[in-house]
Amino acid sequence: MSSPRSKALSDDAFAVLTLRNLIFDICNQNGGGHGGSAIGMAAIGVALWKYIMRYNPSNPEWFDRDRFVLSNGHCAMFLYAMNHLTGYDAWTMDELKGYAGPKLNGHTTIAHGHPEIECPGIEVTTGPLGQGIANAVGLAIASKNLAAWFNEPGFEVVGSRIWCMTGDGCLMEGVAMEAISLAGHLHVDNLVLIYDNNAVTCDGPLSWINDENINAKMRACGWEVVDVLDGSHDVQAIRAALEHAKQLKGKPVFVNIRTVIGVGTTTQGTAKAHHGAFDIESVAASKRLAGQDPRTTHSPSERGLAFFRERKSNGAAIEGEWNDLIKRYESAHPDKAAEFAGRQSGDLKITQINDILTNLDIGQFKGMPTRKVNGLILQKLWETCPALCGGGADLVTSNNFLYSETDVFLPSAGFKGRYIRYGIREHAMAAISNGLAAYSPGTFLPLTATFLIFYLYAAPGVRMGALSHLPAVHIATHDSFAEGQNGPTHQPVEVDSLFRATPNLTHIRPCNAEETIGAWMHVFSEEARTGPTMISIARDPVGDVPNTDRAGVARGAYVLVEAEDANLTLVSCGSSLHHAVAAAKLLGEESGLRSRIVSCPSFDQFDKQPREYRESVFRLDGKPIVSVEEYVATTWARYVTASVGMSSYGYSASNESNYERFGLDPKGIIRRVKAYLDFLGKRDARSVGWQCI
Amino acid sequence: MSSPRSKALSDDAFAVLTLRNLIFDICNQNGGGHGGSAIGMAAIGVALWKYIMRYNPSNPEWFDRDRFVLSNGHCAMFLYAMNHLTGYDAWTMDELKGYAGPKLNGHTTIAHGHPEIECPGIEVTTGPLGQGIANAVGLAIASKNLAAWFNEPGFEVVGSRIWCMTGDGCLMEGVAMEAISLAGHLHVDNLVLIYDNNAVTCDGPLSWINDENINAKMRACGWEVVDVLDGSHDVQAIRAALEHAKQLKGKPVFVNIRTVIGVGTTTQGTAKAHHGAFDIESVAASKRLAGQDPRTTHSPSERGLAFFRERKSNGAAIEGEWNDLIKRYESAHPDKAAEFAGRQSGDLKITQINDILTNLDIGQFKGMPTRKVNGLILQKLWETCPALCGGGADLVTSNNFLYSETDVFLPSAGFKGRYIRYGIREHAMAAISNGLAAYSPGTFLPLTATFLIFYLYAAPGVRMGALSHLPAVHIATHDSFAEGQNGPTHQPVEVDSLFRATPNLTHIRPCNAEETIGAWMHVFSEEARTGPTMISIARDPVGDVPNTDRAGVARGAYVLVEAEDANLTLVSCGSSLHHAVAAAKLLGEESGLRSRIVSCPSFDQFDKQPREYRESVFRLDGKPIVSVEEYVATTWARYVTASVGMSSYGYSASNESNYERFGLDPKGIIRRVKAYLDFLGKRDARSVGWQCI
Repeated sequence: MSSPRSKALSDDAFAVLTLRNLIFDICNQNGGGHGGSAIGMAAIGVALWKYIMRYNPSNPEWFDRDRFVLSNGHCAMFLYAMNHLTGYDAWTMDELKGYAGPKLNGHTTIAHGHPEIECPGIEVTTGPLGQGIANAVGLAIASKNLAAWFNEPGFEVVGSRIWCMTGDGCLMEGVAMEAISLAGHLHVDNLVLIYDNNAVTCDGPLSWINDENINAKMRACGWEVVDVLDGSHDVQAIRAALEHAKQLKGKPVFVNIRTVIGVGTTTQGTAKAHHGAFDIESVAASKRLAGQDPRTTHSPSERGLAFFRERKSNGAAIEGEWNDLIKRYESAHPDKAAEFAGRQSGDLKITQINDILTNLDIGQFKGMPTRKVNGLILQKLWETCPALCGGGADLVTSNNFLYSETDVFLPSAGFKGRYIRYGIREHAMAAISNGLAAYSPGTFLPLTATFLIFYLYAAPGVRMGALSHLPAVHIATHDSFAEGQNGPTHQPVEVDSLFRATPNLTHIRPCNAEETIGAWMHVFSEEARTGPTMISIARDPVGDVPNTDRAGVARGAYVLVEAEDANLTLVSCGSSLHHAVAAAKLLGEESGLRSRIVSCPSFDQFDKQPREYRESVFRLDGKPIVSVEEYVATTWARYVTASVGMSSYGYSASNESNYERFGLDPKGIIRRVKAYLDFLGKRDARSVGWQCI
Repeated sequence: MSSPRSKALSDDAFAVLTLRNLIFDICNQNGGGHGGSAIGMAAIGVALWKYIMRYNPSNPEWFDRDRFVLSNGHCAMFLYAMNHLTGYDAWTMDELKGYAGPKLNGHTTIAHGHPEIECPGIEVTTGPLGQGIANAVGLAIASKNLAAWFNEPGFEVVGSRIWCMTGDGCLMEGVAMEAISLAGHLHVDNLVLIYDNNAVTCDGPLSWINDENINAKMRACGWEVVDVLDGSHDVQAIRAALEHAKQLKGKPVFVNIRTVIGVGTTTQGTAKAHHGAFDIESVAASKRLAGQDPRTTHSPSERGLAFFRERKSNGAAIEGEWNDLIKRYESAHPDKAAEFAGRQSGDLKITQINDILTNLDIGQFKGMPTRKVNGLILQKLWETCPALCGGGADLVTSNNFLYSETDVFLPSAGFKGRYIRYGIREHAMAAISNGLAAYSPGTFLPLTATFLIFYLYAAPGVRMGALSHLPAVHIATHDSFAEGQNGPTHQPVEVDSLFRATPNLTHIRPCNAEETIGAWMHVFSEEARTGPTMISIARDPVGDVPNTDRAGVARGAYVLVEAEDANLTLVSCGSSLHHAVAAAKLLGEESGLRSRIVSCPSFDQFDKQPREYRESVFRLDGKPIVSVEEYVATTWARYVTASVGMSSYGYSASNESNYERFGLDPKGIIRRVKAYLDFLGKRDARSVGWQCI
């Protein structure tokens, strides 16, 4: 069915209708979704996908594609519809029909409620507001840095731009504002942030909660600003604005596009359009306008499909040109081309790294705090593995993350550096590192660094990285009240509980240099390719711990001191372990009690071990197993019969006095252990349940 | 010792030196602290404390005092020195000498590494950057709202202004930018944010990490901006700027004051001045300039002390005037005066509230999801308790937090409303609520609301409230994968681990209306006066759970179904409990197994119960105790012998299908329980250690 009226429509207008009608069907098929913004963004979608972005629907992984980030991830069906219409193989109509379905009996779909990175044609997982903008900044840094390293005159082998879509919500989130501020500072001019300015939020008009001058704010942050007044219909105006954005040099660009949420429906322009199905009459009218039978669904017309599917041949052609360029590049710059190929394939120089880590002489680190050891190890790895990229949140001296001045990622240095001065922007740091990792698997191995307590600021970014299976190394220093004088505001006692419970994140708390090496062996292991690692380290020197083993870290926990007929087992990690070792010695001297000693740097790794191994470490013989750590102790209860830990926040005092104050120095430990043994008497330790002692 | 040179100094200049010399001594006494900014801020301190702020050193709790917030809390010694010099009784020189001391053998001081609210003359605990700015916004809202309610023509009984000091760091943090944006939107013109613009951060020059036009950014956010070019010396210029800030109406005011970090020392103007002791020669020179013997420490001159201590009589006088005003107010407006006195005394209308909660008929909530029940309960409490104040982060419909249009805190409504539209600013929401609670004990009982997963964005604010013993109610909805289609980005599986481990935070996860009432009974209980409560509730209706008891919530866990000779105990909470109940029934029908059933809405409350009670709930008879919850299960290990839970993120699908998908529906539960019982065989369940099944 096609009508004279639909024939009279321009190709652009027809395409906008085609997209809207598909979005209507996706939203209405199961009675919901956040379709209003997607409907309002349709003209932007047509402009971007038809005229602006470089991509190849037949190869979603093409290395030099432009990256599109839907920071307002709740409009997922916008992206899914675009992927279907432009012809991504995976995005069949059947997949689209799964959107918002009940998915009973194990049924799955790639049309999730929010875009998920595992699906072809999705660059990053988005949904939690603000994250996508920071991811986009990470992607932009990645592209700029690769271009700086590998482009040569006449050989622009890296030209990828980043297009990020945002609504009102993302722009209110702190993480986005941090990332926007940093992007302005870094002058990443390959980044375009497109603002779907529909002036409506979940609860009501935007003016209820915000009346900033957003353009002035973006300019103040170092961005170019381009305005589009009719973003609901005028595809060519949007195209012109986006083309202009591409021409602007030296700054990231903010394109402020006014749209109408749920345009053309009965709820248009109101908060009601934010979520839920659309009224049948409006949908029917829109279909009739496109010459479509309103009784049919999920059936774009030939004309509409042809308009979008042309992108397949276009995409194949531009990827073909790039492949030819690479061939010429291989001849002209063979060394660089080989290096570039390595980076594309995710080569982390594993052999050389393992060689370094296996043979690292422990003597040089004697008596050093783990954060200092970590800085020295990292320096060696940094020189060897060009994929390492990142930095700290303005606490370099405190974090001991060392870098040279020429190593800084800066426009003035042509973006060649890979040390990122994140500034005091912990949340954006973690979210930007997800963007770096998402650029292409293994091309970058992102690093972040700050105090452990400030990873609580960054936690939603750390979570998104773990959820998205993106490798990164989070270096968390000052990881207990041994932090000292800064006091309880800076002393984590509960934060470990979060990170130890986070799926796909490997939390490692090494006790000394040997185990810190082991932590980095994990980072460069095969299993660390599918998620981030957090290395939790301490500020002050630690006492002696016997028999530590870098290879033991991979097992999560291992026996340091075995004792036949032991009276109890003491288990600990990090900056508590040396106190446990000293306590074991005292217990022997004072009371004749024999202790096994276990080091447990990683619960995550330990839980993956076979039962037999686990029961060889934490025996089931009914004898007491006591954990010792300067944290709220409940995370240990799964392994031990009792825990020496914290039940309050810390205190502003010296490292030494805090261990004494909270009964976590050797004397405090043995006092608590003895009281526990007295309580137990002759009873089996397991029979009385876990005790916080 | 006093010299002609020091005599020639103006009183202001002499006071600045007096303050600096004391700060030098505090920093150098134990070899460190963040003194550089404090030294640079000395002239600001003199202007504020001598000429601008209304306060009474003899009564730090005077209700109508101006509030000072040191958001750059690492400059704590600045505030401590001011409190000493102006004559706060608690701030003796001996206390100041404790700053950065080792504090061995249980020694304590109030001069902590960062300001802590428990100490007289400290309004909020600060240190984690950005929090203080958001706290200040909360304090400003509190003052505006009280003024709107209680001021009458001729009776400005509430006139408190908020003065917040910030460095570069706070202004880069997302939480601060969220709060700044909201403050601009709300037009809280009783708030002055003073920027110690020394252009140096921990790592180096500010320009390394930030080159925003901060004035333009603040204006774009709806703030007035006032500049001071010489903030290191010119007390009267600063005074004039602050006086001007007081006169400006309709917007909060940003005073951008250029200072020199560590001014007058060898490290001035560099990152080295940020932290550590000052060079002896510079300190000696500064002392000589003030006519002080450089060999003496901690000994402000008579002239210096007299300058500051005059504030004691001034403070007594202005508090006296206010007391007189209140007396006249009591005559002129007796009802209002009584109400105002109630708010000052922290009257939460406990009797009426308890009456409501005790007698609330459960019938009306039948079949309702807990979030909806919660909305209806809250509405009743909201009408009864005027101290309740707050709102949600733009998800009102989702959160079911109901309010009327006239109830909104808005300048157009004269600030009389107490519903705060926080916008999409979760982190600021939590931190602002801390400011509301900190205004004066019990004057406000702050509420916040968003999805549980987005409390991860807010977590550092929630933590600071708990650390600071500030009551608040955090309403966390959509608290599991029962959230449904939004998918794993919105489905918390690990976040409970954080909040359940957070000291001083009471986490409650009620299973139905009865227990939701119990959660609110906790909120209005005596013990909830010293910390926040998080009520974790669900989106969908839940099935039947027998014998729930609102009074049981206070005990944390209690037996729902007792069974003599039970084969096992099933324990659960929230939206999992009804599945556990159904599983118990099935287990009986299919396998003849008898189950005890325990409801455990709050680990925090349960851990406070006597051992005897705890062991009556979770018996030590060696029989299996299995927890059931849609979270990573490790938090349960302290109570149970095995857990049915999650080991991965959730999935975008219907509530129902997710329970099935992850084996957490009744069928999945019994499948897992049976496998566990098979594994156990005849063994004592405790003898084999905790199992994740």
